[in-house]
Amino acid sequence: MGVVVELGKARKAVGSASALTTLVEEDMGRVNAIIIERARSHVDLIPELARHLIDSGGKRLRPMLTLASAKLCDYTGSGHVHLAASVEFMHTATLLHDDVVDESELRRGKKTARMLWGNEASVLVGDYLLGQAFKMMVDVGSLDALRILSNAAATIAEGEVMQLITANNTATTQDEYLAVINCKTAALFAAACEVGGTIADRPKSETAALRAYGRNLGLAFQLIDDALDYSGQQADLGKSIGDDFREGKITLPTVLSYRWGNEAERDFWRRTLQDGDIQDGDLEHAISLIERRGAGEATVERARDYGAIARDALAIFPDSDAKEAMLETVDFCVSRAY
Amino acid sequence: MGVVVELGKARKAVGSASALTTLVEEDMGRVNAIIIERARSHVDLIPELARHLIDSGGKRLRPMLTLASAKLCDYTGSGHVHLAASVEFMHTATLLHDDVVDESELRRGKKTARMLWGNEASVLVGDYLLGQAFKMMVDVGSLDALRILSNAAATIAEGEVMQLITANNTATTQDEYLAVINCKTAALFAAACEVGGTIADRPKSETAALRAYGRNLGLAFQLIDDALDYSGQQADLGKSIGDDFREGKITLPTVLSYRWGNEAERDFWRRTLQDGDIQDGDLEHAISLIERRGAGEATVERARDYGAIARDALAIFPDSDAKEAMLETVDFCVSRAY
Repeated sequence: MGVVVELGKARKAVGSASALTTLVEEDMGRVNAIIIERARSHVDLIPELARHLIDSGGKRLRPMLTLASAKLCDYTGSGHVHLAASVEFMHTATLLHDDVVDESELRRGKKTARMLWGNEASVLVGDYLLGQAFKMMVDVGSLDALRILSNAAATIAEGEVMQLITANNTATTQDEYLAVINCKTAALFAAACEVGGTIADRPKSETAALRAYGRNLGLAFQLIDDALDYSGQQADLGKSIGDDFREGKITLPTVLSYRWGNEAERDFWRRTLQDGDIQDGDLEHAISLIERRGAGEATVERARDYGAIARDALAIFPDSDAKEAMLETVDFCVSRAY
Repeated sequence: MGVVVELGKARKAVGSASALTTLVEEDMGRVNAIIIERARSHVDLIPELARHLIDSGGKRLRPMLTLASAKLCDYTGSGHVHLAASVEFMHTATLLHDDVVDESELRRGKKTARMLWGNEASVLVGDYLLGQAFKMMVDVGSLDALRILSNAAATIAEGEVMQLITANNTATTQDEYLAVINCKTAALFAAACEVGGTIADRPKSETAALRAYGRNLGLAFQLIDDALDYSGQQADLGKSIGDDFREGKITLPTVLSYRWGNEAERDFWRRTLQDGDIQDGDLEHAISLIERRGAGEATVERARDYGAIARDALAIFPDSDAKEAMLETVDFCVSRAY
């Protein structure tokens, strides 16, 4: 039952971002140290709450992409480490605010910060981390990197507002959905990769390629995330599913199921996603409808397309360990079936 | 009844920041245009909500201070206008998040954005404006200004978290209260003034003087604000009072009244501020206790002290219209009895 997310033509069996992890292992040690150092404050609540997030087992994919991009560009300085930490702080601030906006109770199986410390603290500590992120960027001293990341900050917020507007609206189009994930997810992936090339002072053709790689990888990543939220396979593994469904969030699997469904099916989507009237068994029914219409597969297929574009974007770079790891990361993102 | 906030030794009768307003009038026209321009977004909700704040009649004191400081330093470029707009965006973002944290229903007599568009939108549009603020700073291209303002962003958030922690705690000390307002209010005043000198490339002695001016002016401003919230005179003018009281916010008038009061008075403060058990007539009783103990006067006196320090900080600058306007602004902030 459900969507089986699998890689069509992976060049190798992947199940983790292992090449990427190995590639940036040493630098990530420094990033992690900086993250802990910069989450400090004389106000105890701040490091406490930040620590909760830091320890909650995120993959740190975005900072790893910054480090890998810098490596791909033969960067030899130390600014990439601070930029990577900034990227992770921006992401963490977004998660804190997201959980408040979505009224989420759990994230990665742990209670969200807002459940433990309240919405107020989550909003404010998010602001603090965003301030710290900008401080670190300023310390690096690259105005180009600052421009790229401050643009991303505004764009992410725009995407979140768009998502808020499309919530509960079953009439949301594919274009609208793509615009949302472009802003809320792909913009930070794009910026995280681009700054790795920018700080290495590489020509526009290369930073643009890194940006394209990051953007398309981000789109693929989010599409798979959205598919997995309705994945019976994921449910079988004991992972939580159905968050988007319960929150009335409109994602591609439901956009497509609504459009491809019959009138009875549309009634179901309107009752659940639009009116928020969710009964026992509705999630299972939603999963079965998505499967019946092939909307999960179609979502994964779309992710594969973006993944292929991401891979192509790196073609201009000569072969290297960094390039290999970044290509494998695409496969990982598209094929992850937790 | 209540605290009469009046200026002891004002050099002239002031009731508005008129010299400041006149000094920066032309530049403020440009700042206002930039603010409207930069609050734009293809996501309609963003400019709508931002517009609500922009139109809600704030004094725009902080950006005016940036402009005046730049003028004081004979700055001839145009970067100060964008920095001033950034400062106002930072302030606006803080207000949006503050209202969510404090669950405020009104601000300056108008419904808060969160009452009209919801907490979610207020959090996210705040994030958007902060992102736009940083984009504008990057456009100006001064890493020093960026450093000063990103530091302020993190410090403001720290101050807000500190305020959250001291809320409902009648045992809060004067030092703790001062630490809160130093961070949540004075830090942005200080940064707003300092960047005016920084962008004019002035020596450290002058930028430090501007920072000291701003910081002490900010402290005076907040102290008066806190006194006015218990001002019978303000109530007589039909202005809203008692917000801090109802929210259990601990400010200097209550810190002092609690410490200077007898046991019955402390019981009253604990019941109302700490336990949040507020009955009809309690605000009037709080105002009378503050008056009886002279805690309102003492708060205003403290504001006068900081105001004097702010004035002294400008002594190193030769006389000019800008200096005159900035000195008058101190008088205005300390003597404003709306």
